[in-house]
Amino acid sequence: MDTWKAIRGKRDTRDYEPRPIADDAQRRILQAGRMAGSSKNAQPIRLVVIRDAARKRALAACGDFTTHLPDSPLVIVIVRFDGSRPFDAGRTAQNMMLAAHELGIASCPVGIQHDERAREALGLPSDTVVAMAITFGYPRGGRAVGRGEARLPIGEYVHWEQWGGTGDGAPSA
Amino acid sequence: MDTWKAIRGKRDTRDYEPRPIADDAQRRILQAGRMAGSSKNAQPIRLVVIRDAARKRALAACGDFTTHLPDSPLVIVIVRFDGSRPFDAGRTAQNMMLAAHELGIASCPVGIQHDERAREALGLPSDTVVAMAITFGYPRGGRAVGRGEARLPIGEYVHWEQWGGTGDGAPSA
Repeated sequence: MDTWKAIRGKRDTRDYEPRPIADDAQRRILQAGRMAGSSKNAQPIRLVVIRDAARKRALAACGDFTTHLPDSPLVIVIVRFDGSRPFDAGRTAQNMMLAAHELGIASCPVGIQHDERAREALGLPSDTVVAMAITFGYPRGGRAVGRGEARLPIGEYVHWEQWGGTGDGAPSA
Repeated sequence: MDTWKAIRGKRDTRDYEPRPIADDAQRRILQAGRMAGSSKNAQPIRLVVIRDAARKRALAACGDFTTHLPDSPLVIVIVRFDGSRPFDAGRTAQNMMLAAHELGIASCPVGIQHDERAREALGLPSDTVVAMAITFGYPRGGRAVGRGEARLPIGEYVHWEQWGGTGDGAPSA
């Protein structure tokens, strides 16, 4: 699948078939995360791969909108070292989710980073924090369709030269 | 270019030819940002496209490692509304940089978010903050080669089930 098609077609989806992710697909998703750039190539990100049912349930208790987490065949928790940028975790996540999408695997970020129990469930050292969890799975019904498909019109999303600037450089009315 | 190849090959690169980015390529890069998912599809991100030389110089004064910014033919500043996640800005950035890479265009994030003058140069409203700037350009010499090509070994990058866990589920020695 060409890159632009993957970018255009990817939707955050949390309704998965229960069948496990194939090993080679899982390997590629992890490598995609690894290839993401980071500020000054400091590589402040680590991944924790979760497939154990009890651990998934423990993580699901750590956030809202996590009810699908125990049923996700693969959960990858993005961990970052203190002082690093959540921005770099977002780069990592998008790499993994696009690589998965190319393989027909849907995904969705899940916010569990605000709950200290997530750190405990993962045994994280004190100089690290959870950045985000990502659930992966083959989409139920074969289609990855998220709830929030709509996007802002491009004219509202993009400003030119300054806030409110239109394509000709002038602020919009 | 297939998605996996783009993910694997993308390097953060800041040495560009001076020639401008073609309009259709610029359009696709902006659309790629727009397609990035966000928490609850709140779409808290906006882009400010900078091609004006004086404004580039003003932004270059707002951070370290910005010397290449005035020579970048296209700078896109990622702006987010207060209360949103820098993580979502990272997703947006990676979409744009991968779409650009597929078109032979190199890119690099530039941290200008800590300087209040960046907000002023862009005329941002009080409920927004700069998340990151991204420079784009055709790579000098035709190859996008970043300074930081090396990546951690996969065994160091990935932990299994818990921090320090190896592929068989046991913490590593």
